[in-house]
Amino acid sequence: MSDPTVVPGLEGIPATHSAISQIDGAAGQLFYRGYPIAELVAQSHYEEVALLLLDGELPNAQSLERFDAGLRAHRQVKYNVREIMKFLPVTGHPMDMLHCAVASLGMFYPQQELSDAERENASHLDSMAMRIIARIPTIVAMWDQMRFGNDPIPPRADLCHAANFLYMLHGQDPDPLHVRILDACFILHAEHTINASTFSVLVSTSTLTNPYHVIAGAIGTLAGPLHGGANQQVVQMLEEIGKIERVEAYLESKLAAKEKIWGFGHRVYKTRDPRATILKGMMQDLAQAGHLRHSRLFEIALGLEAAAEKHLGPKGIYANVDFYSGVLYHEMGIRADLFTPIFAMARSVGWLAHWREQLSNNRIFRPTQIYTGAAPRSYLPLAERP
Amino acid sequence: MSDPTVVPGLEGIPATHSAISQIDGAAGQLFYRGYPIAELVAQSHYEEVALLLLDGELPNAQSLERFDAGLRAHRQVKYNVREIMKFLPVTGHPMDMLHCAVASLGMFYPQQELSDAERENASHLDSMAMRIIARIPTIVAMWDQMRFGNDPIPPRADLCHAANFLYMLHGQDPDPLHVRILDACFILHAEHTINASTFSVLVSTSTLTNPYHVIAGAIGTLAGPLHGGANQQVVQMLEEIGKIERVEAYLESKLAAKEKIWGFGHRVYKTRDPRATILKGMMQDLAQAGHLRHSRLFEIALGLEAAAEKHLGPKGIYANVDFYSGVLYHEMGIRADLFTPIFAMARSVGWLAHWREQLSNNRIFRPTQIYTGAAPRSYLPLAERP
Repeated sequence: MSDPTVVPGLEGIPATHSAISQIDGAAGQLFYRGYPIAELVAQSHYEEVALLLLDGELPNAQSLERFDAGLRAHRQVKYNVREIMKFLPVTGHPMDMLHCAVASLGMFYPQQELSDAERENASHLDSMAMRIIARIPTIVAMWDQMRFGNDPIPPRADLCHAANFLYMLHGQDPDPLHVRILDACFILHAEHTINASTFSVLVSTSTLTNPYHVIAGAIGTLAGPLHGGANQQVVQMLEEIGKIERVEAYLESKLAAKEKIWGFGHRVYKTRDPRATILKGMMQDLAQAGHLRHSRLFEIALGLEAAAEKHLGPKGIYANVDFYSGVLYHEMGIRADLFTPIFAMARSVGWLAHWREQLSNNRIFRPTQIYTGAAPRSYLPLAERP
Repeated sequence: MSDPTVVPGLEGIPATHSAISQIDGAAGQLFYRGYPIAELVAQSHYEEVALLLLDGELPNAQSLERFDAGLRAHRQVKYNVREIMKFLPVTGHPMDMLHCAVASLGMFYPQQELSDAERENASHLDSMAMRIIARIPTIVAMWDQMRFGNDPIPPRADLCHAANFLYMLHGQDPDPLHVRILDACFILHAEHTINASTFSVLVSTSTLTNPYHVIAGAIGTLAGPLHGGANQQVVQMLEEIGKIERVEAYLESKLAAKEKIWGFGHRVYKTRDPRATILKGMMQDLAQAGHLRHSRLFEIALGLEAAAEKHLGPKGIYANVDFYSGVLYHEMGIRADLFTPIFAMARSVGWLAHWREQLSNNRIFRPTQIYTGAAPRSYLPLAERP
């Protein structure tokens, strides 16, 4: 044992080398493969960022075209998977449905064991990743139709990843500015170094299990209330506040009770979360352009953000990416319990990039424990127990 | 960062305190809550060992009766889950099916978020664990009927955990000595400190996700060929050898080529795997008692074990638990691709004991990475790329 003490949550213990993303918490910067996310949101799009994260470099025209065409071609989900979804209770959480449906895909596309050659073939791995990335949005959107008794709306191959998802949710051509915001949200949620769900990817990948097991397991890990789910909580909090006049009182009572205010602060960023800054700008622009619903909750959100900035900004606590994405998804007419599935949809790219990276230099995870239990003792038959 | 180097697979890094099990690799001993496994196999049974692992102490008569009755009462799997299984392809691996089916259970028994009180209520957690432990065998046995077009055989409440599983597999009252062996195998596979699947339990539990996500994810991790699956490989190897006369030549060619011989050696035990010693004794006794099929593979297994003992024993390499359990399951007429699901079935108890333990002193897992990627760089539009 190289170290006799347990570091709770392995905080600060490096668990892997990684070339995928980098956070500069002090400067409030996030880089994907070296590129600042603000540049990627401004100049790129989710499909290209996905290939960048998977491959390590911005693709040339041919690679990008092949990957994008592959995503469009693999959006369709099998009849059998839809049937499976029909027998899941409509009252369940969509994250539970998504875990089950992604796990089911593994049976239809068996890949129990990759050969060494396949593990080293980057384009083979990209193609496996592409099939998963393409299908998750269809599953989520299908569920949102089917749970209300509607036919699922088949995907369209003429729309980009973000536009097609909105189309399958709402059944109509999406507002181009909504598409642009959602694409930005996808980019901003695609990857964020090692957290619990990404770490679960490394651990499960290390047994060489297939990528459906890996991604399904990561979805299950993300479903925990300490990890995903904060943007859903933001909307519930705004509902609870109920009207703009109550914002100040709500905030003060939370601060006085030292209770958590959903969507504010971040463990890593000591200054503004760079993803939040980007979404805040988009929200302001689009609110002015008249493309948002300007719902009651939206007004409350703007009020809360302004009030919190006054109280918490001096302490270095600002609205984070969950705050803005929750408000923006709500403005696009997306149900709150789909927010974490949308997080999973976007993050599937980062998870699969880590899957590839782990395979390229694999060692099975086998940490140790420090035993704190009973000393060796003898079995006592039932009749002799106290 | 407290340590600037990555230890591959976190080998030797303590990831948790645990009071559940302890291995003495040098002495070849395994203890559950302090009790040597040989005593538990000789004097206890799987249901009691399950409660011991979950709770920390041998139960009194009342607790054991309540737990056992609960297991029997919760064996039935919902109609909808059976329907879901109908739409999975019969050609898929049963571990993929099991991941999907266990994930689906989470939707039917929603427990998105445990309150603090519920997390601290041991009997509430035991009751949740019991429902999962009870249903996994039913799912596995149902699948083995349904994939061949047969009606699933409903569980019987008058049989113990092991007997009921054999009954659901074969549709007849099981041989009592087979029940005793299978019960021993369940006990011996129930827990084994921190390995990749148990570590995945700690990581996913740490986000406070529900136990169905946790166990489904662990099943997906166990499905990897570097983790579960060795006892299935043992049987395939015995088939490959084909007849007893070929054992010596097979062994010598493998040793000469320095290739792996499935079911021999163990990373942790420097002497005989204590679980293997127990199963070897059972196998010998029962072979003499005429209760095994004495199949061709069984004779090959005995021959291989004797030959390997001669060649490898002096190097401290012996047949391990996978070798004997594989041969024994085969002798009981169980198909080889069910061996890893049976491992998962037995290990569900250990996983759930670690789930409880992690909840009792939780910190979300957030190790770090050492970044090895590109330095910050500027986005290059597609047309300008090389």
